[in-house]
Amino acid sequence: MKLLEERIRKDGIVKPGNVLKVDSFLNHQMDIELFSEMGKEFKRLYEGCPINKILTIEASGIGIACIAAQYFHVPVVFAKKTQSINLDGDVYSTKIQSFTHRRIYDVIVSKKFLSPEDHVLIIDDFLANGCALEGLIDIVKSSGATIEGVGIAIEKGFQKGGDLIRGKGIRVESLAIVDGMNAETGEVFFREQ
Amino acid sequence: MKLLEERIRKDGIVKPGNVLKVDSFLNHQMDIELFSEMGKEFKRLYEGCPINKILTIEASGIGIACIAAQYFHVPVVFAKKTQSINLDGDVYSTKIQSFTHRRIYDVIVSKKFLSPEDHVLIIDDFLANGCALEGLIDIVKSSGATIEGVGIAIEKGFQKGGDLIRGKGIRVESLAIVDGMNAETGEVFFREQ
Repeated sequence: MKLLEERIRKDGIVKPGNVLKVDSFLNHQMDIELFSEMGKEFKRLYEGCPINKILTIEASGIGIACIAAQYFHVPVVFAKKTQSINLDGDVYSTKIQSFTHRRIYDVIVSKKFLSPEDHVLIIDDFLANGCALEGLIDIVKSSGATIEGVGIAIEKGFQKGGDLIRGKGIRVESLAIVDGMNAETGEVFFREQ
Repeated sequence: MKLLEERIRKDGIVKPGNVLKVDSFLNHQMDIELFSEMGKEFKRLYEGCPINKILTIEASGIGIACIAAQYFHVPVVFAKKTQSINLDGDVYSTKIQSFTHRRIYDVIVSKKFLSPEDHVLIIDDFLANGCALEGLIDIVKSSGATIEGVGIAIEKGFQKGGDLIRGKGIRVESLAIVDGMNAETGEVFFREQ
């Protein structure tokens, strides 16, 4: 998606260690008009698929998922990273390793909100090593629901997550795939799509 | 807001200890069409205020804030609950006690995204004891930005948060104010607005 690639080139900051900071428009401050265009693009890509629910994970997937949901006319469910005493015990759960936060999270979704009748689009902001996405896929499979596909804002194409998930036969659409970065020049190299 | 009150009556679940579960449409599964109507109502209430930014806190405030932001045509910033190694050190921070999770969070906002020129609307899903909101107000004040007001989906009017924040001279608009609940009958009593 050209608009997103241009925005990453303009406002993304490349840091040593293949870190791409997009916190000015994607995952701390959020540009809602950009999110609208991203939502329309997810809808175009998944046109005709019988999606009736969007699943994401807190926190930075929620904004993108909610704006996209307007074009699909479906509710959003977000997976929660810690057990809350306000949640019923009746949950699907999995464990997700976060490299960013250097810890393992318990991730849960109430059984009330995913069932075998559901056709799910999973949306998240980043796909890198694929740990978060594998956890969400695990939860959907536990529920018996169908995974229609995955929508990602930015995929780090040089990490293994994309290949890993596509290798399971799951459709993954990433709006921008970064194949490399140069922390000295600040350049970001995108895969042709 | 009648639409939200009706939805709480229909789908909210009253639990002992003054717990109101609204996870089927507000803070786990999210009804985006309801959020649109709530966003329009926040816009109507704050019409004419020079709001240029919406501030919320992860996780359940984000969806409501993002959908509302479409009617204000402004970006959303969400306060983060733990220090991430991907965030610059240059942050506003405060501590927030969560009764739901029985712990104290460090909450941060990057200094890049709040400045004295900003006129901020704070949005969150719940107002009960006011701890989260006080933390967000603390962060906005640290930045020198102006607080135009607060928009809340559901206020528990029988807890002290609403009075506490309004007592500071800050405008608080809650779309539904719950004055009482009966866990035996499941009834929810709303304040006339």
